[in-house]
Amino acid sequence: MRVIVQKYGGTSVGTPERIRAVAERVRRTRDRGRQVAVVVSAMGQTTDDLLRLAHQVSDQPPQRELDMLLSTGEQVSIALLAMALEALGVPAISLTGLQSGIITDDHHSGARIRSIKKERVERHLRDGRVAIVAGFQGVSNGYEITTLGRGGSDTTAAALAAALGAEACEIFTDVPGVFTADPRIVPRATKLDCISYEEMLELAGAGAQVLHPRSVEVAKNYRVPLWVLSGFEERSGTLVWEAKKLEKVVVTGATLNKGIAKVAICGVPDRPGVAARVFGALAREGINVRLIIQSVGQEKVTDISLVIGRSFLKQAVKILEGLRAGLKAREIQSDGSVAEVSIVGSGVAGTAGVASRMFRALARRRINIQLISSSEIRIACIVDAASGERALRAVHDEFQLYRLRRRLVAARPEARA
Amino acid sequence: MRVIVQKYGGTSVGTPERIRAVAERVRRTRDRGRQVAVVVSAMGQTTDDLLRLAHQVSDQPPQRELDMLLSTGEQVSIALLAMALEALGVPAISLTGLQSGIITDDHHSGARIRSIKKERVERHLRDGRVAIVAGFQGVSNGYEITTLGRGGSDTTAAALAAALGAEACEIFTDVPGVFTADPRIVPRATKLDCISYEEMLELAGAGAQVLHPRSVEVAKNYRVPLWVLSGFEERSGTLVWEAKKLEKVVVTGATLNKGIAKVAICGVPDRPGVAARVFGALAREGINVRLIIQSVGQEKVTDISLVIGRSFLKQAVKILEGLRAGLKAREIQSDGSVAEVSIVGSGVAGTAGVASRMFRALARRRINIQLISSSEIRIACIVDAASGERALRAVHDEFQLYRLRRRLVAARPEARA
Repeated sequence: MRVIVQKYGGTSVGTPERIRAVAERVRRTRDRGRQVAVVVSAMGQTTDDLLRLAHQVSDQPPQRELDMLLSTGEQVSIALLAMALEALGVPAISLTGLQSGIITDDHHSGARIRSIKKERVERHLRDGRVAIVAGFQGVSNGYEITTLGRGGSDTTAAALAAALGAEACEIFTDVPGVFTADPRIVPRATKLDCISYEEMLELAGAGAQVLHPRSVEVAKNYRVPLWVLSGFEERSGTLVWEAKKLEKVVVTGATLNKGIAKVAICGVPDRPGVAARVFGALAREGINVRLIIQSVGQEKVTDISLVIGRSFLKQAVKILEGLRAGLKAREIQSDGSVAEVSIVGSGVAGTAGVASRMFRALARRRINIQLISSSEIRIACIVDAASGERALRAVHDEFQLYRLRRRLVAARPEARA
Repeated sequence: MRVIVQKYGGTSVGTPERIRAVAERVRRTRDRGRQVAVVVSAMGQTTDDLLRLAHQVSDQPPQRELDMLLSTGEQVSIALLAMALEALGVPAISLTGLQSGIITDDHHSGARIRSIKKERVERHLRDGRVAIVAGFQGVSNGYEITTLGRGGSDTTAAALAAALGAEACEIFTDVPGVFTADPRIVPRATKLDCISYEEMLELAGAGAQVLHPRSVEVAKNYRVPLWVLSGFEERSGTLVWEAKKLEKVVVTGATLNKGIAKVAICGVPDRPGVAARVFGALAREGINVRLIIQSVGQEKVTDISLVIGRSFLKQAVKILEGLRAGLKAREIQSDGSVAEVSIVGSGVAGTAGVASRMFRALARRRINIQLISSSEIRIACIVDAASGERALRAVHDEFQLYRLRRRLVAARPEARA
């Protein structure tokens, strides 16, 4: 059985006409001799509409009931897509998270898929039906409906592709693929033909909205070729695959994250355990620290700088002020007007001079670098918010990403051939 | 555990404000020391909106997928009601048909409840929660979602009340109770304080829209006291209960059914099996014969008259024309402009002169009776459609139903005391 998993987002199924167009596309895939499992999100603004209703009856709707409510959005779109396919003469069946065997933990509104009991989906595929699976939702012990949180439908699709041993997982979005940078900011940005899971994870983590990191992780763990494709035009999209199957390039993309803030604990006596204490206090309140930098200070006094999501800034300052006396720190500084510009690529760490080229490119445009962090495949600089977009264009130009071409070194996976 | 089952229709939960009002009412019932299980329909026009969507993607949506689609309507309203209750500080949990253990046969869009696995609902009630159950839906073998068809939520409520051994089942509607006749046609119609299951069944079957017959049947079989109450005003409503617990009255109500038609097979040689053949042919096409009358003719030739739903008239005439030659019948006559006026009451058959009073009342107003049928507790006359409303007022006056008072002869059931 040669299976393709396709995922269509809310925009792709936003109207009855678009649902019929999706049905046509699914039929074409089926005509290429594939069994198709389709994962669908809720139609257009449905989720927002439902949330609005929830907030009209309750200031703090319980998560469990929110999951009950929101999961109806996908149930509507799977039923409609099944009807549209049947109307084309294509046997199809819609399946809720429960019916598809998407088993999650019991963390309502942010559940993680634990396993997929794939028997039912497989049986329908074997019987020649298109299996239409509700994205974003699953079921925990005792038939409790859960939802997977942001980007959940992508994760459903990747996990289902892994479970079914699918040839590929095709994610249809409202963009033509993954770009070297956000084309709204960098007009010269170019669409990537392929990218590795690791690079995609860094791009997603650094603010590229195309795929949720969790879906990329799942695809990576099970080596599922993951395509990012436009739901509105027939172009080849971007293939996310194993690094060894792709030609090596130094830098693949550049990102800008505007939604961050900087906090610094200044003048802390440099003793072991200080960073851990700060981290722990923030984590207990659910604040995710994206970056922590402890500068080596003089006279055994140090500064600890943290980068966090901007929406947590007030809360974080309050927590750190509470810790200040105990840490014997001089003061807490905060800056909500910063941005993070990054370059991502498999050659970033292994190629001499990449970091310095980035820094020089920023310096030439008189953009001050406030903090730097780097990983195996990424270098990130914190700059002031007003310079963010200029900084992104600067590094994109520096590495000539608009000229980026990259080839597969392995056979192209069959899907989208 | 003293349990009350309450059912709220689509109008009662039509807006967020109304859902909050329902939550208030549920809280008051709970404050009276009862455990409450609530059955809810889809909000207002939701079902119609979903059906419209379905018909925009398919001319003939499969029943299975329609059930998948429509069942989301109730899932939305149960989640919202649970949120509204929690916002009042009342512990509550919403449960889909599957989660409530509503097991049905697999007849999509018109399923019948086979059993209720009540353990989960009972556990939540025992734990002090309001259990909010999705009406109209259930699950057949293998987690397939089914819906119960028209009036399904009433049936869910009655069946749940039976399964839980509830003190009472309270059906909240947009009318204050069951009336002696439709007040829109008979201004003098009066609200009944109580009525027997059997009478209610005849009223419902004869066109009163208040309760679906199936829900009355279920309540009757399990002797659940069934209240019909207004969701918008605090009045006592109508109690539907066992006949022996109610004072006997001759006539309880009068009904008018405008949606019928008459077909006659004229000049059929009077042989055994003719009626069966006619019945069978219609039933195979899904046409329900409400009334069949075979007049004793002369010279071994008879006329067979049938009363059916008006929407089936064309189809029925076609079927009967197809049978005509085989039956050696002279002709098929049809009349789409008839109406059925009935009187219902436990004393109808047992009290001398009731039928003749009805016929005289109609005759005095020069209303011609085309067909008559009677059962233990009902007499129905077919009259021409134009006279229907006059006929209803005539019989309502004749039996002075506007003066009807009836008392319980048993202790009033606790609910609504």
